[in-house]
Amino acid sequence: MEDGFSLQDATVAIVGLGLMGGSLAMSLKGKCARLIGFDPHLPTVRLARAASTVDHAESFFALSEATTKPIDVLVLAAPVPTILGLLHQLRQVNYQLPLTLLDLGSTKRDILQAMSSLPENFDPIGGHPICGKEKLGLENASASLYQDAPFILTPLTRTTQRAISAACQIISAIGAHPLEMTAEQHDEILSATSHLPFLLSSALAHSTPRAFAPFIGPGFRSTSRLAGSPAHMMLGILQSNRDNILRAIRSFHCALNEIESALRDENYLALENLLQRARSEYHLLIDGETIPKFQSPIL
Amino acid sequence: MEDGFSLQDATVAIVGLGLMGGSLAMSLKGKCARLIGFDPHLPTVRLARAASTVDHAESFFALSEATTKPIDVLVLAAPVPTILGLLHQLRQVNYQLPLTLLDLGSTKRDILQAMSSLPENFDPIGGHPICGKEKLGLENASASLYQDAPFILTPLTRTTQRAISAACQIISAIGAHPLEMTAEQHDEILSATSHLPFLLSSALAHSTPRAFAPFIGPGFRSTSRLAGSPAHMMLGILQSNRDNILRAIRSFHCALNEIESALRDENYLALENLLQRARSEYHLLIDGETIPKFQSPIL
Repeated sequence: MEDGFSLQDATVAIVGLGLMGGSLAMSLKGKCARLIGFDPHLPTVRLARAASTVDHAESFFALSEATTKPIDVLVLAAPVPTILGLLHQLRQVNYQLPLTLLDLGSTKRDILQAMSSLPENFDPIGGHPICGKEKLGLENASASLYQDAPFILTPLTRTTQRAISAACQIISAIGAHPLEMTAEQHDEILSATSHLPFLLSSALAHSTPRAFAPFIGPGFRSTSRLAGSPAHMMLGILQSNRDNILRAIRSFHCALNEIESALRDENYLALENLLQRARSEYHLLIDGETIPKFQSPIL
Repeated sequence: MEDGFSLQDATVAIVGLGLMGGSLAMSLKGKCARLIGFDPHLPTVRLARAASTVDHAESFFALSEATTKPIDVLVLAAPVPTILGLLHQLRQVNYQLPLTLLDLGSTKRDILQAMSSLPENFDPIGGHPICGKEKLGLENASASLYQDAPFILTPLTRTTQRAISAACQIISAIGAHPLEMTAEQHDEILSATSHLPFLLSSALAHSTPRAFAPFIGPGFRSTSRLAGSPAHMMLGILQSNRDNILRAIRSFHCALNEIESALRDENYLALENLLQRARSEYHLLIDGETIPKFQSPIL
């Protein structure tokens, strides 16, 4: 290929073998030349070795050219604050070979800013697969996690065609589909489609008396499901996307206030109209749109 | 049996063969002597006949002693306003045989009030199975809909032991489990566990720009799912449980405001505490509680 990247000949290293990194390894298995995994959590490394999730697993991540075969793609699959820490660490590394760097972090603006100060042999690109589970860890990872999921790519000005091609080949190999946008667009969209729903689920769980547990049905279960997400994971996301999330909360307040006023005023015609509009908006959001494919010149 | 009710010898009539009534018929099939179904929607009656959902299906509901075999249990499986209309209609009926009357309406206070003015040969009891789907109609009905669902019973002062036994035998036959409470308790609980989540999902769908559709993941899908419920179905519920729902909205506003303030003030310690508390409350609500069984003396 013109841009010189071929996944089947590449060594891919994944930092973080939790739900996202572990599932990535499982679905990349056999589709690249070699898979290396790093995770600071020893039981995870042991599990990755026992299950042959990767060809080689280590607990301590260090990028060095002394390894037998150089790494072609480095994937950072960790919570946002950890990715920011890793990027800070990589700024000190004088790695001589060109290295494509992809992250899977849930917000992009802060991460892209950190990527922009990496030494020039790094060829970074931001990424965010729109999939997951509330239950984290390698023990919950699965080769099908990325199947049919949108995978957002946020290139930097310095990102080469080779890095875009590498990312697209990985995304295609795991069954996801790439979508390109800026980090700012990503963070605005995700504040509404992911971070706000998490906060609503949490507020719902928080406002519901425990004594009502025996009467919980499938509706409540579904609306509150995201409240089960680990708080420490979500905190870094909320912190690095604060302004957008505060705006999304305000716009939600307006929508709920409209409904509340109609009910309080017993204006049932207005209420039915609001609910009907919400229902058709729901269907447009969930089923209505076809997914635009990211057009990379090489694909 | 002492109270004289035996499901296997009983004729059960179901008014409304939609999702709830149709699923009830499917799961009662073969467990009672005879099943009769009524539905004003002709295609539903034709489908019920073609699929033998009931032994006999009619579009026009009329309670008359001239039928070959008298009805032992009459189940009203319709939206709340329709049930209220049917109860008003039954007030004029001079039915000489004792008849157990059970409804499946989503709110109970207004329905029990209407039941209390029925002629004395009616032996009424309020009911509400906590299960369902957003997709209504007989075509979405299934024999497993009630499996393991809580089924709330709200007896009136006049409800006899025979009616309680009849309801419990039906609930046990369809694989649900009975829970007894007052109509007021029911409506307060359901405002928080069912009606509020529906309004939150609707407000979320309403506040999310349509252009964000390609970036919807499983989290948004789950939190917004109830917004797909038909507005006309929900309107009667909201109308007849307005005060409780307005209270539940206010208590949700407080919980969301707490989260919003902590994020706005960048008080991340407070925010993490709130989210952790919400998470453990979620787990207590969803997994934590054992379900108390309704103890009817005869079971």
